[in-house]
Amino acid sequence: MSRTISILGSTGSIGTSTLDVVAQHPEEYKVAALAAGRNLDLLMQQIEQFRPELVSVATAEGAALIKSRFGSAVDVQVGDEGLVAVATHGAVDVVVTAVVGAAGLLPTLEALKKGKHIALANKETLVAAGHLVTTLAKQQGCHLLPVDSEHSAIFQCLNGERRVDVERIIVTASGGPFRDKTRAHMEQATLQDALNHPNWAMGAKVTVDSATLMNKGLEVMEAHWLYDMPYDKIDVVVHPESIVHSLVEFQDGSIMAQLGAPDMRVPIQYALTYPTRLPGNYKRLNLLEASSLHFRAPDLDRFPCLRYAYDAGRAGGSMPAVLNAANEVANGLFREERISFLDIERVIASVMERHDVLSNPSLDDILSVDAWARIAAHEVAQKL
Amino acid sequence: MSRTISILGSTGSIGTSTLDVVAQHPEEYKVAALAAGRNLDLLMQQIEQFRPELVSVATAEGAALIKSRFGSAVDVQVGDEGLVAVATHGAVDVVVTAVVGAAGLLPTLEALKKGKHIALANKETLVAAGHLVTTLAKQQGCHLLPVDSEHSAIFQCLNGERRVDVERIIVTASGGPFRDKTRAHMEQATLQDALNHPNWAMGAKVTVDSATLMNKGLEVMEAHWLYDMPYDKIDVVVHPESIVHSLVEFQDGSIMAQLGAPDMRVPIQYALTYPTRLPGNYKRLNLLEASSLHFRAPDLDRFPCLRYAYDAGRAGGSMPAVLNAANEVANGLFREERISFLDIERVIASVMERHDVLSNPSLDDILSVDAWARIAAHEVAQKL
Repeated sequence: MSRTISILGSTGSIGTSTLDVVAQHPEEYKVAALAAGRNLDLLMQQIEQFRPELVSVATAEGAALIKSRFGSAVDVQVGDEGLVAVATHGAVDVVVTAVVGAAGLLPTLEALKKGKHIALANKETLVAAGHLVTTLAKQQGCHLLPVDSEHSAIFQCLNGERRVDVERIIVTASGGPFRDKTRAHMEQATLQDALNHPNWAMGAKVTVDSATLMNKGLEVMEAHWLYDMPYDKIDVVVHPESIVHSLVEFQDGSIMAQLGAPDMRVPIQYALTYPTRLPGNYKRLNLLEASSLHFRAPDLDRFPCLRYAYDAGRAGGSMPAVLNAANEVANGLFREERISFLDIERVIASVMERHDVLSNPSLDDILSVDAWARIAAHEVAQKL
Repeated sequence: MSRTISILGSTGSIGTSTLDVVAQHPEEYKVAALAAGRNLDLLMQQIEQFRPELVSVATAEGAALIKSRFGSAVDVQVGDEGLVAVATHGAVDVVVTAVVGAAGLLPTLEALKKGKHIALANKETLVAAGHLVTTLAKQQGCHLLPVDSEHSAIFQCLNGERRVDVERIIVTASGGPFRDKTRAHMEQATLQDALNHPNWAMGAKVTVDSATLMNKGLEVMEAHWLYDMPYDKIDVVVHPESIVHSLVEFQDGSIMAQLGAPDMRVPIQYALTYPTRLPGNYKRLNLLEASSLHFRAPDLDRFPCLRYAYDAGRAGGSMPAVLNAANEVANGLFREERISFLDIERVIASVMERHDVLSNPSLDDILSVDAWARIAAHEVAQKL
């Protein structure tokens, strides 16, 4: 079994971990195409090491630099068209979608149209347009292989099981850096506080989403689409140790769980090897060192973003895309230190309130509410 | 899907739980035959409720009583021949082997010869003659479906996985009533102390085996045969809460676990529904109430029986049958309050020491070393 992959977002946290996995299994994986943004130094190292046929970068200047260095050895493309080219490259079997935010949507849909399997690390794609993506994947016979540790855990728990036997999905949450903090503390929280995740090393956007618990809300919506489960059957449990990555309860009362050290390379590799496994030189969990595992209910009063996500998911239609766009803007403004930590939730709540849900939105509808919600979020933020 | 079952040991803890499962799913299961020992009152209630075609009891007097009550409505047989008749009844698809001790061996082998699947609650059968039982099951295309909660957990963790991907099996142990006791305390332990299991309601023999940790040792040997794993890849971890029923680690570092409330009806039902599931009105695990789970290494100095089991498993051949027979005798003498708690391990060690291993023993060899070890165990016990 040898698979050819492309990576959207090769210089980010998931992208570099994916290339680590590939480097451990050179017989198994070939990298045909890489899309990066502005981290050209790292992309050039990746080109040296993995020799893709195609790369894409954010700007024409970046493209010129790559061309001056590698000449005709690699085809270089730019921007959104470049992303789509990497997602649809003819040799590719599996596209790893590791760009951040709704930017992942269009290339993911194009990849599915070409029959590519998707290793999905871009949860915003499913949040914004789950009905379009899952329907297209089904029509095309493409796998949506989860890369998030939680969804990989659920996927592994469902291995060999019938969906009709599933009673409940339990998504675990570390609780983030403010797990045990008061609202008064969060009101004063700095960017540095929010980026100080207790267990996982991740990109900045998802780390801030972990601090608000919006990340968990997006994951609940992702689980809804990936596993065709109603929101009443998806629970979140705070598990500070991040050792149990998620669980599935079956109708007989039996609960399956997947555990491991917090190392994203494990779920990334599983997405690439599914339904089999390969060895991996990754962090190992020693249960004896773990020694004690805790579970408790999430506090929706201290973390209303998680409640907003359930609300948006249950409202359905265009509301999840609105929540997602408002969150991307508010998260970004917080990372630019232009709004406070609790302003993030205020922006999201206010934008959701202004939106009239479109049921069964088309792709154009989604792109249009996404654009509207971003403008609305900026407007709300300016008045705070 | 409707399956016809027979139960060896219908009035014991596993037997009554199995009939509870059947009573919850009258459309799915029919009981064709039951074998019990001396608890005739309960057996007669079971005959009333489940209307088997055949029952077997320990004594001719018992058989006469059943006949006088039920006349020609049920065929009644006696003793070892009766056990085999129940195990091989023509209508039966699955035989639940829930008798205690090496007495389960012969009827299990006869059932396999007739192509019956085995729901295996009698771990001593695999301990004493794992090579014969697993080889015969393979030849006959019969499933060996684990009923022990630990082995059911492992079985569920292996669902949809390749054996070649398995790196390690981790069998959890509650640690039993003496988990946190000193050797000095155990030296003085009464039968009542040993029967006071913290988590599980089980029969007396297995509860005493849990106190010595011999039960865990027998389970390690059972796992060795059921899952074709070398002893170096089977670990025991003490998990006082008995919520994680066991785990499997794969070569990529991912660990699957099965969790649940301590209710034997869940693994029993899974053995009967495999590879699908059915609803079950059983105790449910609430992770939020569980709140904290602990794991630690077993103490082989305080619990040498677990070490003897690994030793016997690694010695192989006839040694596991010797360990098992010596343990059955010593466990029984302790339950008759004729030897002390720590005498159990002394008897086992002494009998094992006297035995010269036969490699690849035949069934006759096993029956003969079993008989020898029982006599030897009594001799050793008398001299203590």
